[in-house]
Amino acid sequence: MTTNHTVRLIARPVGEPKRSDFAFADEPLPVLVDGQMLIKNLYLSLDPAMRGWMNDGKSYIDPVKLGDVMRAGGLGQVIESNNGRFKVGVHITGMTNVQTYCVTDGKGWAIADPTFAPLTTYLNVLGMTGMTGYFGLLESGQPKSGETVVVSGAAGAVGATVGQVAKLKGCRVVGIAGGAEKCKIAVEKYGYDACIDYKNEEVRVGLKRECPDGIDVFFDNVGGDILDTVLTRINLRARIVICGAISQYNNTAPVKGPSNYLSLLVNRARMEGIVVFDYAPKYKEAIVAMGAWLKEGKMVSIEHVEEGIDRFPEVLMKLFKGENFGKLLLKVG
Amino acid sequence: MTTNHTVRLIARPVGEPKRSDFAFADEPLPVLVDGQMLIKNLYLSLDPAMRGWMNDGKSYIDPVKLGDVMRAGGLGQVIESNNGRFKVGVHITGMTNVQTYCVTDGKGWAIADPTFAPLTTYLNVLGMTGMTGYFGLLESGQPKSGETVVVSGAAGAVGATVGQVAKLKGCRVVGIAGGAEKCKIAVEKYGYDACIDYKNEEVRVGLKRECPDGIDVFFDNVGGDILDTVLTRINLRARIVICGAISQYNNTAPVKGPSNYLSLLVNRARMEGIVVFDYAPKYKEAIVAMGAWLKEGKMVSIEHVEEGIDRFPEVLMKLFKGENFGKLLLKVG
Repeated sequence: MTTNHTVRLIARPVGEPKRSDFAFADEPLPVLVDGQMLIKNLYLSLDPAMRGWMNDGKSYIDPVKLGDVMRAGGLGQVIESNNGRFKVGVHITGMTNVQTYCVTDGKGWAIADPTFAPLTTYLNVLGMTGMTGYFGLLESGQPKSGETVVVSGAAGAVGATVGQVAKLKGCRVVGIAGGAEKCKIAVEKYGYDACIDYKNEEVRVGLKRECPDGIDVFFDNVGGDILDTVLTRINLRARIVICGAISQYNNTAPVKGPSNYLSLLVNRARMEGIVVFDYAPKYKEAIVAMGAWLKEGKMVSIEHVEEGIDRFPEVLMKLFKGENFGKLLLKVG
Repeated sequence: MTTNHTVRLIARPVGEPKRSDFAFADEPLPVLVDGQMLIKNLYLSLDPAMRGWMNDGKSYIDPVKLGDVMRAGGLGQVIESNNGRFKVGVHITGMTNVQTYCVTDGKGWAIADPTFAPLTTYLNVLGMTGMTGYFGLLESGQPKSGETVVVSGAAGAVGATVGQVAKLKGCRVVGIAGGAEKCKIAVEKYGYDACIDYKNEEVRVGLKRECPDGIDVFFDNVGGDILDTVLTRINLRARIVICGAISQYNNTAPVKGPSNYLSLLVNRARMEGIVVFDYAPKYKEAIVAMGAWLKEGKMVSIEHVEEGIDRFPEVLMKLFKGENFGKLLLKVG
């Protein structure tokens, strides 16, 4: 009998999540009923959005209930199957949650073919992260060739997809990231035309230099002062895609609203929020397009893999401290 | 020889505009050259946007230069004409500016036919104010029959058009206005289903009661706390039209940004700024539609007329103090 090692949310974090907000335990695995399968989890996707799921209150998805296994997307291998669609041995992605095994009927899960791309790519460019960047940029941002696209969290997981897709669409692409190393990665690995290091330069000054023709699309993962500064340099009919606001997620004070929002009026510009699930009917389009770019070497998928499920709280904090280089994954050791 | 009485901007206001920011003088009228005409100004349109025009810095329109006659839209009568398009006696609307006469070549001016509607209507529902409300609501807000539309500054000039058009398009229309008298006007004259008096009730509580199905479109003339509160009650794919932010125009402190803007993300909602001039090629469509509604008694155009050009600074302040009931006009006495 295999046991399942679980990480359950037992307290709603105040500010930064801490180890005592979670419980770690070995639990028996349930017996499979018809249609179900048992999955051995291999990698968990760690995302800024997880912080929001820990809060009570209305959002685009229900909060994780206190006492439940912490929600996470992930990748695993089918080791037992009463499900006609997924055979034993197959790798699949879906809501594994933060545990070593999971039982599911496979609804909403997708096969990850390791002969097409490395497994971890299915949690990055070919997973929710890639879908978020691809559709958020193209559907809400609507970049046109020759336009200037600015991306905050430029070297982060979503930002990396956005930057690469924008570049492939013929845009001038300028990133904003924290630290020289991330800016170097953004330019050298993801093909950004330039990347502004907000820890070493005023964003206002960097934008002035790197966006001589103004900003047509801003893809925002960060919020706070960076959003406010970008608003001062947008062009007529600019599109601002609100994907996230990682600078604000651990706030105990109210979120900082963009005090320059009247720039939307002056420039007849638009600010729109996106949630990846809305594009689910179109995921295949993105997988085909980005799968081809990956094969052709026009795009890269870089993952930052940490190991050990019990390190979940500390590894998650790397996102908020800006310590991950590439899409942050937790290998279930 | 007739003299022109002018009101010139001589200082950039800090906070509320005051009398000493303007100079009042009698000046000789220039001699008309070919193509020009002399207009005797009858009514000036007083608008919140004027406050922005007094500030230095980039906006959707150049600032009024220090020493220039203060910019204003208005209505006048042609009293001399070297212009084939406009005959003596005709009433026309355009940028009269704050003076008793003006000289123009007629570019951008339109005839106001007093047999079709009262002259003052051409500075309200059939003028820039009406165009702003009509196109801002329909093009950016895109209300559908049965949806809930909320309008701040509900009994203000633009708000009155928005509320009436939204109602004619089959929406539930809820206003937000300051004071019982304005709320009464909004419901009784403009046909709002309800109007929340923000001076006597928490907007949050009023919205909860009056918008049981949430908010699909918010047409914002006010900004500040009202925008922030509305953001907490918007529906999936809501559209927020940023037309103005009268609560913030006389701020000496930074503008208050909407700290609940992440509601745009949760609800995949959109916030877009509008400027009326963008719709100029389509004005005729609005004039035909609203002209018909006015004739049929389905719509009203209510003006608040004050008199005396030298009272310009004080009368303008009525807008910011919320003391006007209907579109504020200054009759050139």
